[in-house]
Amino acid sequence: MTHAADLLAALGARGWTVAVAESLTGGLLASALVDVPGASVSVRGGVVAYATDVKRDVLGVDPALLDSVGAVDEAVASQMAAGVRRLLRADVGIATTGVAGPEPQDGRPVGAVCIAVTTPQGGTTTSFLLEGDRAQIRAAAVEKALTTALGRL
Amino acid sequence: MTHAADLLAALGARGWTVAVAESLTGGLLASALVDVPGASVSVRGGVVAYATDVKRDVLGVDPALLDSVGAVDEAVASQMAAGVRRLLRADVGIATTGVAGPEPQDGRPVGAVCIAVTTPQGGTTTSFLLEGDRAQIRAAAVEKALTTALGRL
Repeated sequence: MTHAADLLAALGARGWTVAVAESLTGGLLASALVDVPGASVSVRGGVVAYATDVKRDVLGVDPALLDSVGAVDEAVASQMAAGVRRLLRADVGIATTGVAGPEPQDGRPVGAVCIAVTTPQGGTTTSFLLEGDRAQIRAAAVEKALTTALGRL
Repeated sequence: MTHAADLLAALGARGWTVAVAESLTGGLLASALVDVPGASVSVRGGVVAYATDVKRDVLGVDPALLDSVGAVDEAVASQMAAGVRRLLRADVGIATTGVAGPEPQDGRPVGAVCIAVTTPQGGTTTSFLLEGDRAQIRAAAVEKALTTALGRL
């Protein structure tokens, strides 16, 4: 099974639903989940918050935090996960933010990625420095999001 | 250029931003746009409204409409496009809803897809019957969404 199928199986075993909030992955994480047959049992949907003000206005990320640290930060990822979980009324929220390149962003290097997972049992956020071009970093970030979420279930 | 790059070029020429609302494509349309270097100039983000009640509660699709016609309908697609355009404060909204299969849904056959595009100049909705397996139908729906939007600019 793929990690997406593994995650949906683990969610299904708990009767939990999932929603995702994506910045650099831009819909790829949601798509990986929806690709799995039967995904509709657990997948509520997601928000692609590509513009920073969408993180603030739709997902409820603290504007002062965004102003002080930028969009690529563990606390921002954590608030994105909590926000999409609340907005889409899901049990589990997963968020991605990071720098796909080719240019650094907000003082963070290309490949810097933060993944946050919020479940009914609490939350965790992890940072990674991923290698590759824009497409490779985004694909690797999806895998990190799936395996990080799996590790929390 | 890809159709995604063509669309972003056409949006950029008008100074317009775009947001997407996705059901069966599940994030693939947003991802196709974000794949284009420089996407952040025009792409605000999107909502993956996989669950029907997310179409209602997050995108503002009329509950009575969803109850009467189901989720795979031109009027639903039109309201999804208008809803994401409003929620993400974009100039252009694009929406996809349809049946990726393997089973029919809401009385619609596998491959039935509705695409809606709303711009400052008005809206249009088009229906397609696409062929292939689940992945092929979703990929074809993304292409139809991109070319339909291009045709409106």
